[in-house]
Amino acid sequence: MPLFKKVAIVGVGLIGGSLGLAIKKKKLARSVLGVARHKETIHKARKLGAIDHGGTSLSFIQDADLIILATPISHILKELPQVVKFAKKNALLMDVASTKNEILKTAKKYAKNKVHFIGCHPLAGSEKRGIDNANVNLFKGALCILTPLVQRKAEIFKIQRLWHSLGARTCILSSERHDRILAYTSHLPHALAFCLMHILPINYFVFSATGLKDTTRIAASDFLVWKDIFLSNKKEVISAVKNYQRRLNYFLRLLSRNKQRKLENFLATAKLKRDSL
Amino acid sequence: MPLFKKVAIVGVGLIGGSLGLAIKKKKLARSVLGVARHKETIHKARKLGAIDHGGTSLSFIQDADLIILATPISHILKELPQVVKFAKKNALLMDVASTKNEILKTAKKYAKNKVHFIGCHPLAGSEKRGIDNANVNLFKGALCILTPLVQRKAEIFKIQRLWHSLGARTCILSSERHDRILAYTSHLPHALAFCLMHILPINYFVFSATGLKDTTRIAASDFLVWKDIFLSNKKEVISAVKNYQRRLNYFLRLLSRNKQRKLENFLATAKLKRDSL
Repeated sequence: MPLFKKVAIVGVGLIGGSLGLAIKKKKLARSVLGVARHKETIHKARKLGAIDHGGTSLSFIQDADLIILATPISHILKELPQVVKFAKKNALLMDVASTKNEILKTAKKYAKNKVHFIGCHPLAGSEKRGIDNANVNLFKGALCILTPLVQRKAEIFKIQRLWHSLGARTCILSSERHDRILAYTSHLPHALAFCLMHILPINYFVFSATGLKDTTRIAASDFLVWKDIFLSNKKEVISAVKNYQRRLNYFLRLLSRNKQRKLENFLATAKLKRDSL
Repeated sequence: MPLFKKVAIVGVGLIGGSLGLAIKKKKLARSVLGVARHKETIHKARKLGAIDHGGTSLSFIQDADLIILATPISHILKELPQVVKFAKKNALLMDVASTKNEILKTAKKYAKNKVHFIGCHPLAGSEKRGIDNANVNLFKGALCILTPLVQRKAEIFKIQRLWHSLGARTCILSSERHDRILAYTSHLPHALAFCLMHILPINYFVFSATGLKDTTRIAASDFLVWKDIFLSNKKEVISAVKNYQRRLNYFLRLLSRNKQRKLENFLATAKLKRDSL
């Protein structure tokens, strides 16, 4: 028997589409339906086999026992009241967004006793976007962080089983801890890459090697998604950037004062840490 | 007839070893000899076919018509007087280091009318080091920047032919322009990656995805090589980092003041530039 009767995916882009493909491949649901803003996306998702059917209205989700929110953060925040309204009683509701605090607070406000909300953040993705880049193996080997609002073990266990079936590992964190950690491991590196691209003169591009390309790959990410992430995790991102600035100032001091020995130690420590990443 | 009679490579590491392998494969010299600090390196380089013979004394270079300096910058600066002393009259002398100003100034002081010095910087490499990682195809498709001290066309043309034979493209820049450009396209990204690794708490590593790994790959580079690069190009690196700090401050301002529209434009501009890299 499949894990779910009907799974509804709101937002059939890279993550939502990949989830649809994987859920269908692993036969984890009797049917998978999609909701998207544009009919064309639904059409493509059906053709690719990421959903069985779907449409542009949120009312489509009403029979689902699992609803997956896979739209950008600002959309999730706006859609949540409507989603809860259309959801059936005791449905499982999860998101896959990159920040968790703000979404959990909003979910808490609206979900009440009607749906069971479990925040999810699969650490998988790509700088590419859209259903065209959906990939059935996207979550294989990835870590998915769960930030449950509901504390009932049965529901958490079911969502864990879903991710494990897709090849992902799971761990549980509070949304506060999630947002602090991800500010360092993901949001800060993205902010640094966006700023680096910003100051690079275009006529210097021809003099770049693989180092620059690797370092800035994530600056090719969807800027609307990242605007949402930065704003949604503003406090932690600002704190991480300020911490980073202090380190950059220290590097500048070592360099301008010719502190060869300390500079060597500084770089050696960084290299040693990177080797263990 | 090969391009050179005898090529001497001082420093048979990743770059020097790869040059030896490629020069021998393309039969660009009758013989290739190597100079290294440790006998074991010479032994390995011979076994891999990167050199024909060699030793630990600089006096080995005396018959070479091309001498390649492939040691870290601080070593090149120290070795240059000795190298010129042992070099035969009218030998071609080139380096492959990542900064050019300081080396050219030192070369100018010592080379005088005895040898023809041409600075070279192949934009190829790896965070890995040493003869064990030498690769015959390292320079294929890469751009090699030439910063000639000598202005005689015959010598420049000969060095260009060498690089072209190894599959690289070449261009000519002044050492000042080279060091300014590379401060942005290479030294700044490395400084940012080293600083990022520095502030990342080790217990957060498990919550990282490919984005962080790509962004910080270059922080695994040889810290002694990079200490030399930063110190040798101090003025330009400091200027690039300060310029970067202003942009990072601007990003912080947009974020803390909730300037959604401007933040969106900021990220969109960075993405657009990255897409064209």
